Amino acid sequence: MGDHVYKTIEVTGSSTEGIEAAVRRAVSKASETIRQLRWFEVVDTRGHIEDGAIKHWQVTVKLGFTLEE
Amino acid sequence: MGDHVYKTIEVTGSSTEGIEAAVRRAVSKASETIRQLRWFEVVDTRGHIEDGAIKHWQVTVKLGFTLEE
Amino acid sequence: MGDHVYKTIEVTGSSTEGIEAAVRRAVSKASETIRQLRWFEVVDTRGHIEDGAIKHWQVTVKLGFTLEE
Amino acid sequence: MGDHVYKTIEVTGSSTEGIEAAVRRAVSKASETIRQLRWFEVVDTRGHIEDGAIKHWQVTVKLGFTLEE
Amino acid sequence: MGDHVYKTIEVTGSSTEGIEAAVRRAVSKASETIRQLRWFEVVDTRGHIEDGAIKHWQVTVKLGFTLEE
Amino acid sequence: MGDHVYKTIEVTGSSTEGIEAAVRRAVSKASETIRQLRWFEVVDTRGHIEDGAIKHWQVTVKLGFTLEE
Amino acid sequence: MGDHVYKTIEVTGSSTEGIEAAVRRAVSKASETIRQLRWFEVVDTRGHIEDGAIKHWQVTVKLGFTLEE
Amino acid sequence: MGDHVYKTIEVTGSSTEGIEAAVRRAVSKASETIRQLRWFEVVDTRGHIEDGAIKHWQVTVKLGFTLEE
Amino acid sequence: MGDHVYKTIEVTGSSTEGIEAAVRRAVSKASETIRQLRWFEVVDTRGHIEDGAIKHWQVTVKLGFTLEE
Amino acid sequence: MGDHVYKTIEVTGSSTEGIEAAVRRAVSKASETIRQLRWFEVVDTRGHIEDGAIKHWQVTVKLGFTLEE
Amino acid sequence: MGDHVYKTIEVTGSSTEGIEAAVRRAVSKASETIRQLRWFEVVDTRGHIEDGAIKHWQVTVKLGFTLEE
Amino acid sequence: MGDHVYKTIEVTGSSTEGIEAAVRRAVSKASETIRQLRWFEVVDTRGHIEDGAIKHWQVTVKLGFTLEE
Repeated sequence: MGDHVYKTIEVTGSSTEGIEAAVRRAVSKASETIRQLRWFEVVDTRGHIEDGAIKHWQVTVKLGFTLEE
Repeated sequence: MGDHVYKTIEVTGSSTEGIEAAVRRAVSKASETIRQLRWFEVVDTRGHIEDGAIKHWQVTVKLGFTLEE
Repeated sequence: MGDHVYKTIEVTGSSTEGIEAAVRRAVSKASETIRQLRWFEVVDTRGHIEDGAIKHWQVTVKLGFTLEE
Repeated sequence: MGDHVYKTIEVTGSSTEGIEAAVRRAVSKASETIRQLRWFEVVDTRGHIEDGAIKHWQVTVKLGFTLEE
Repeated sequence: MGDHVYKTIEVTGSSTEGIEAAVRRAVSKASETIRQLRWFEVVDTRGHIEDGAIKHWQVTVKLGFTLEE
Repeated sequence: MGDHVYKTIEVTGSSTEGIEAAVRRAVSKASETIRQLRWFEVVDTRGHIEDGAIKHWQVTVKLGFTLEE
Repeated sequence: MGDHVYKTIEVTGSSTEGIEAAVRRAVSKASETIRQLRWFEVVDTRGHIEDGAIKHWQVTVKLGFTLEE
Repeated sequence: MGDHVYKTIEVTGSSTEGIEAAVRRAVSKASETIRQLRWFEVVDTRGHIEDGAIKHWQVTVKLGFTLEE
Repeated sequence: MGDHVYKTIEVTGSSTEGIEAAVRRAVSKASETIRQLRWFEVVDTRGHIEDGAIKHWQVTVKLGFTLEE
Repeated sequence: MGDHVYKTIEVTGSSTEGIEAAVRRAVSKASETIRQLRWFEVVDTRGHIEDGAIKHWQVTVKLGFTLEE
Repeated sequence: MGDHVYKTIEVTGSSTEGIEAAVRRAVSKASETIRQLRWFEVVDTRGHIEDGAIKHWQVTVKLGFTLEE
Repeated sequence: MGDHVYKTIEVTGSSTEGIEAAVRRAVSKASETIRQLRWFEVVDTRGHIEDGAIKHWQVTVKLGFTLEE
């Protein structure tokens, strides 16, 4: 986290398994188009319920990446 | 999430295992008396410590459900 | 949580596995020097990304303990 | 707002028209079962988009009512 | 605060005396219909003024109670 | 919004019609005594309910004005 | 709290006795110059300590008053 | 809101008419370049005042859209 | 509050009487080991309920003290 | 900060130089009409950009002053 | 700030000198690819410490720019 | 910021010069007793005013340091 300029974006990943899997999905999808991802911060943890059971976990993360020189 | 009226309640579930299990317990207990649960949002993650180890995870969620027509 | 005085400190644990493991690491490290840990509250969930994958989860918790009489 | 005890609940109304209509829908639905509604406070204004246009406005309000003596 | 599921409600008590009396009034009124109240948290302290003097203190508390098994 | 000093005040306007009308009432009343109003920011949207219908919308705005040189 | 325009100011009262006395001091001082005070809201409770004991309680309140027609 | 990855952006729309029109302008402008807009959330409502009257309403919304597979 | 460096800690005091007594207990306990306490700020007011009555008030304060030269 | 009543106002100063200069401008302007200014707190730091460079820094401060006896 | 649609992005600039220089670096880097930058707002001021001295200041700003017609 | 446990403390530094100098004073004082300081975050910027001019800047920072293995 040294002498660079970073940009932050906000992405929501979903998963039927749980919180970590939803975060990993968000990071994985973002890394398809952004090479220099450096950190994440969880900002919101939500989900959908059907018939009394959790169907999807939806976790919103801020993702920071280096703007290349 | 269409043309309905929703009510939100706040429930805390606990678990010896972890965060997802505590959320599932809160949803499961609430669904015993509320049929139309639709979504949850985690608002607080706490827990109890005994002898230097975590004994319970206690996760507070907002739960939204449809008010039936 | 009865008739005592408590002090709260803020500690960040890290883990390559996930959120619960990072919290357990923070609690475990703090309990090496503090005997009367009673509760925790998650205040921040972050982490590091390398080559498009999460390398560390870093979870900051408030830890409360009894000030001994 | 004198010498009473009040309870607050959280309700989300939706409307295709706009914010005021969504709040009115929430108040109207809640008043079917609660007689002593006294005040509201808007806590969240969201909505759904389809084909580049807003389909529903969804406004969450806190509703306060008198607990009868 | 062990292995249970809790529900939280929000109630406002009022008093001509002061903050503690308003909280006690909220707890007392809620306990008429809820048996398992366990904790409270003050979320708002307001009041009314008439002729330059405080007429009512109005304190809003969150009240947590055990959902019975 | 250039090279000036601004002061901010907080005013609540009310209306039987809706949110915009309540904001306009607050701005209009403040402009009777303050000449250099420049901007507003909505900070709170509340209202009163009587017989299950909204009687007044009450919108609190911050109002910024130039301190004259 | 009907069809009026209100202004809100922020005042801090202090007291050697406690929180209610500090709020009353703030209200009393403000009412020397403002006739139409209607409500208060506590926004901050602080104080000074000397020789291990509390010397002053300092409570900051928002005070609302009617702008006269 | 099922099994997808979403991205959130922040856009401010303005209007001489009111809040809903400013939100619609923000959504409409964003939909020129983003096809999969799904939801919005109002985060800020401000505006400009000239000669004691509101000239523009400026509403900032978060806009969520599906990242295509 | 002049030309010094201060450290802030967070302590929770409890009391069967009320808020001020719980704050005094926190200050008193902290002053057993810290000589230079200067100010406090209330950050949280909670408590325990048994059989429909408040058993303990628990008030969390930030305490600031001078780091000695 | 002893046994007085304080009032707080909110003022925004601007500067082409930086943050401290903008705060100083706000304090200086306010002191033209208020004699007993005692403290400030920075609540917002913004600014204007023209042609890719910062033209003005605009810093909003709360200013506290003693209400004279 | 008239009749336009704005987009907001979040960028972090770093500097060994101080806060203003880190903000200027963020604005300068962003202006390489965005022509219509109009305003900034500081949202976070952090930094790195090595051997007891500050090595980098890292300031996160929101940057607003006009979406061209 | 890798595989360690960190503790966070809150310290306020003061300076007659400005914000950066106050932060440096806080870091410098804390480093007299803590060897492994790693990062800071500004949480509050305040100050004292005398005779219409700023006498001290007081900046509160969170300081993070490695708990040694």
